[in-house]
Amino acid sequence: MEKIKQLKEEFTSFMGQVPFTYDPAELYAPITYTLFQKGKRLRPMLCLLACDMFGGDIEEAKYPALALETFHNSTLIHDDIMDQAPLRRGMETVYKKWNTNAAILSGDAMVALSFDFVMRTPKALETVRLLSQVYHEVCDGQQYDINFETRSDVTIPEYLEMIRLKTAVLLATSLRMGALIAGASEADQRLLYDFGIAIGMAFQLQDDLLDCYGDEAVFGKKTGGDILENKKTYMLLKALEMASPAQRSALEQWFSLSVVDQPQLKVQAVKQLYDQLHVKEVVGQVISDYFTQADAFLDAVGVPEERKTSLKTYVLMLSGRDK
Amino acid sequence: MEKIKQLKEEFTSFMGQVPFTYDPAELYAPITYTLFQKGKRLRPMLCLLACDMFGGDIEEAKYPALALETFHNSTLIHDDIMDQAPLRRGMETVYKKWNTNAAILSGDAMVALSFDFVMRTPKALETVRLLSQVYHEVCDGQQYDINFETRSDVTIPEYLEMIRLKTAVLLATSLRMGALIAGASEADQRLLYDFGIAIGMAFQLQDDLLDCYGDEAVFGKKTGGDILENKKTYMLLKALEMASPAQRSALEQWFSLSVVDQPQLKVQAVKQLYDQLHVKEVVGQVISDYFTQADAFLDAVGVPEERKTSLKTYVLMLSGRDK
Repeated sequence: MEKIKQLKEEFTSFMGQVPFTYDPAELYAPITYTLFQKGKRLRPMLCLLACDMFGGDIEEAKYPALALETFHNSTLIHDDIMDQAPLRRGMETVYKKWNTNAAILSGDAMVALSFDFVMRTPKALETVRLLSQVYHEVCDGQQYDINFETRSDVTIPEYLEMIRLKTAVLLATSLRMGALIAGASEADQRLLYDFGIAIGMAFQLQDDLLDCYGDEAVFGKKTGGDILENKKTYMLLKALEMASPAQRSALEQWFSLSVVDQPQLKVQAVKQLYDQLHVKEVVGQVISDYFTQADAFLDAVGVPEERKTSLKTYVLMLSGRDK
Repeated sequence: MEKIKQLKEEFTSFMGQVPFTYDPAELYAPITYTLFQKGKRLRPMLCLLACDMFGGDIEEAKYPALALETFHNSTLIHDDIMDQAPLRRGMETVYKKWNTNAAILSGDAMVALSFDFVMRTPKALETVRLLSQVYHEVCDGQQYDINFETRSDVTIPEYLEMIRLKTAVLLATSLRMGALIAGASEADQRLLYDFGIAIGMAFQLQDDLLDCYGDEAVFGKKTGGDILENKKTYMLLKALEMASPAQRSALEQWFSLSVVDQPQLKVQAVKQLYDQLHVKEVVGQVISDYFTQADAFLDAVGVPEERKTSLKTYVLMLSGRDK
């Protein structure tokens, strides 16, 4: 715990000292607005924790960690245009607060910044390769996500591949980058990458679950949002897979309505169907399996157990399984 | 001439063999649509000619050259959204043919491809640094360009800095990258970079001039487009600088009209004012000065004169000064 807190504080203080205010001011205002919102700094933390696990020099990982955070936020800015999302983390999105052009261009400039940052480390050639690779994959993932909106025949493997590309690969890359900077072996780098994929999948499925079953007080927003938006979540796909013909047609009917008079009625009805099908338990088991997979990958990493404690604790905390 | 033709053919054939069709197809269709339109391949050609000038291995420069072309086209796709341009090179722009989301995301994916391509060369660390640096600058340039649309007090130095960032730096970087790959000295790399800035400025000002005074048959579109769009070109800024109070207020009046009944009347009136002020000659002189500057930089490069012939001829051809 001490280590986690210390790395988070070190990173926050480092990030606060990096200059982000350049000319033209119009370009950099949306960037600082986005980057300096309160956030978990999940990707930087994974990078730093992985680096620390192998006894690497944290100083060498700070800029790459910032690159991961900057890159991640650039994708959010562009995604929010595409999804027409008015809010993110309770704040207006860039395209809403400014306009679409500002969001396109400041997103682009953040990618440029990411590539600049990621090379500020002795192993620059390897870190920049990782960023370039993951950038591809994240674009592919976002395109699949867009495609799925208008497709009614999305399969579960397709959905899992989409969230792998859109979410998990960046977490995996963050971990791998930290390990690489610390000089970990290729085998250990791969293990941490696979660990990252597994926790990335688990976190994303947990998000799907929380959107439906989360404690509204803890979750910070109304549950059922995905249902009202007719989002093809893992929950829905799994429910459809397990449904009887009658349940299936009921689900399909609810999800064919784009506007409903009484939203809570729709949420309730869908959740009732989910409950009949034990979707919560089934998806919970899938998530738990991903965490078990993740544990196995981490166990196989060739460093003493005590070096793995911080990363393990951090992931437990994030997953809420520490309570 | 032989050399120029040969490099162009080699590059075209190389580019035709690089795979660009991946899944998801929706993401890569706009990319191939954009990249495989007929084009001068100016940036790749500058890169290859520079590499050849120093006796470098053209094979090592092909992927970086493709990176420059891919990157350039990614900026065009995003710029066309921002400028709401329906056509480019006589073809529908991506955001028109598909939609804004497709244009944002395929532009992003092209940047990812550029960073992948630029590293496929033995001096990858240096080439990727150059691309990352120029990406910054091009974003800055585009933001200045956007800012200028709504500003009435743009100065000539500001305008020149904008076109330097938006256009010239990428040409300069293309040349420098080719020289770097060939193992040219830092001093020679800088000279080629400065040569590139000078020709980049000259080309852009020539574009401004051609839009107003070009031979419509050669130019391929109606002249006066910039005047009708009230664009703050170098021509206009120079005219305002030299104008008498009466001429100035006439110009300002014409450029305050966003819609006019008889467009040709406006074009004629503005051109008459330009003629009174000898804008064509004055701007022509500035362009000529940039080319003279460029010549001096190229002369100073430390390779025998005969090695410079191809690049010289190429730039002469492009500038139309070879006739």
